[in-house]
Amino acid sequence: MKLLRLYDRFEADIDRIERDLAHKVALAHPTLRDAALHLLRAGGKRVRPVFVLLCGQFGQYDVQRLVDAAVPLEMIHMATLVHDDVIDCAHTRRGQQTVGARWGAQTAMYVGDFLFGKAIAQLVELDVPAIHRIVSRVMVQMVIGELEQMRWLGVIDQTVRDYLLRIRRKTALLIASSCQIGALVAGASEQCAQQLYMYGYHIGMAFQIQDDLLDFTGTETQLGKRPGSDLRQGNVTLPVLYAAKDARVREVIARCLLPGADDSVKNDAIVLVQRSDGLGEAARLAQRYCARALRVLDRLPNIAARDDLRTTAEVLAHRAY
Amino acid sequence: MKLLRLYDRFEADIDRIERDLAHKVALAHPTLRDAALHLLRAGGKRVRPVFVLLCGQFGQYDVQRLVDAAVPLEMIHMATLVHDDVIDCAHTRRGQQTVGARWGAQTAMYVGDFLFGKAIAQLVELDVPAIHRIVSRVMVQMVIGELEQMRWLGVIDQTVRDYLLRIRRKTALLIASSCQIGALVAGASEQCAQQLYMYGYHIGMAFQIQDDLLDFTGTETQLGKRPGSDLRQGNVTLPVLYAAKDARVREVIARCLLPGADDSVKNDAIVLVQRSDGLGEAARLAQRYCARALRVLDRLPNIAARDDLRTTAEVLAHRAY
Repeated sequence: MKLLRLYDRFEADIDRIERDLAHKVALAHPTLRDAALHLLRAGGKRVRPVFVLLCGQFGQYDVQRLVDAAVPLEMIHMATLVHDDVIDCAHTRRGQQTVGARWGAQTAMYVGDFLFGKAIAQLVELDVPAIHRIVSRVMVQMVIGELEQMRWLGVIDQTVRDYLLRIRRKTALLIASSCQIGALVAGASEQCAQQLYMYGYHIGMAFQIQDDLLDFTGTETQLGKRPGSDLRQGNVTLPVLYAAKDARVREVIARCLLPGADDSVKNDAIVLVQRSDGLGEAARLAQRYCARALRVLDRLPNIAARDDLRTTAEVLAHRAY
Repeated sequence: MKLLRLYDRFEADIDRIERDLAHKVALAHPTLRDAALHLLRAGGKRVRPVFVLLCGQFGQYDVQRLVDAAVPLEMIHMATLVHDDVIDCAHTRRGQQTVGARWGAQTAMYVGDFLFGKAIAQLVELDVPAIHRIVSRVMVQMVIGELEQMRWLGVIDQTVRDYLLRIRRKTALLIASSCQIGALVAGASEQCAQQLYMYGYHIGMAFQIQDDLLDFTGTETQLGKRPGSDLRQGNVTLPVLYAAKDARVREVIARCLLPGADDSVKNDAIVLVQRSDGLGEAARLAQRYCARALRVLDRLPNIAARDDLRTTAEVLAHRAY
């Protein structure tokens, strides 16, 4: 797999990020340390750090400074995951017990707060005020994204635009900012950083659409949870909105979203979405976002890093888990 | 009352802070706006903003910049209150419904996250990197303080030092930093800002001890909740630790802290603390912290603001609610 080869090349730098993440949380209070290390060990694709490293190649590649920028961005991502799990009362994530399930919702909330604070504290050390500005704004937008997700929970009467605005805030802005920050830390030009931001934004949108798609197409083993979990929890994603264009499918989805709907209605709704063209249509939109990301690359300097970003876009667009 | 006269003099500036707080949250998402405005209307002494204004007099008093520093500090304080209420499942604070009780724990968590993010975003605009550093470190310490409070919940086998370390993190550091930041924003010398930090630290310690004391000496009307609420919730504060030096009192407190203890045992324990010398001993420690704060003032330039800080210390040390 191409992305794996890409990861291989950055292996030493990614290891450094892992070690730094573990080191940063190891110094904390015992409960925070245990819970945060548990989170770290649960893994993750480290998408945001990898984009920082990739985009850092557009300037002076200083691995220590890039790691110092990548680690807090991953911490912010982790913080939002812990807080989401508290809200969803999730018991597992990626097949592992959540912090909330193991240490209680209270600890999970404070672990999230701790990661936010720690992330900001580390970003400050970079001494690039533009970066604090970018990150604090994204944090606010991410919270609004989460609230929008709560607001639209269980509601089928929403538009594709509502969905896109939500994933923009929840996912795309942090990935876009990771790309931009990688470039800024490496001292690339403002214009280059801005292009990389746009690249990251489109990739981020594609990435989240893919994620929402995989929730319907993945197996329980691949996902670490039952397929259709989003819909089961009332989270109306893009494939669902597209599938609901068919009035009969919409009717079943609406029943599945009613409070107290039983499992058989939920299963019916999931199967209907899986058999609909909603999956295909969502996949095509993800492809369009990827294509836009690739077009942005054409405006960037023709260096090896540009090919890496192209590969990453193509691999993410075709990932199966 | 002297503090009121002090507040009178700063009335226009404090109003400006209130308006700015309301304005900052009004621009947000509807749920965030409603919940945050509800929080604002519930009031509060705005202790941190007032210290920013007071300490800003030790340099070039630029009200707009001081407001820009004071507002995010109050937001951080509010964020910790909302998150604490989620953890405590509190239904009222200052006699008003909590955000969690009215909008649900999920919204309350995001309101806290939003206030953190918004605070950081505004602090960045001040363009004084030292301030970001101070604030992000305090945020991390505050979270650790909350976790320590959870860890010691219901435990009578703890020392006065455990308690002091906890309130240092929970309360004193943010008040100390508010003083320091007021001075830094106004361009006072590093040394002056450091003295004001120490003043704020001692005042903060005294303030929290007083708060914990008032929980036993205040009436339900003054407190907006039943007296002894801290102990009822298992939060072992300084008067309790002092009272527990008497083995018989300790035994009742230990029973009151057992899970499922009934209301009559709790009432007994509260009355025993109220009748003990624990209150007097805690009050004396608060006085000692106040005295230390006053001694720090002697090392500061002899300007009118110094008298204000003296008055504030004396009034806080004798407040009855």
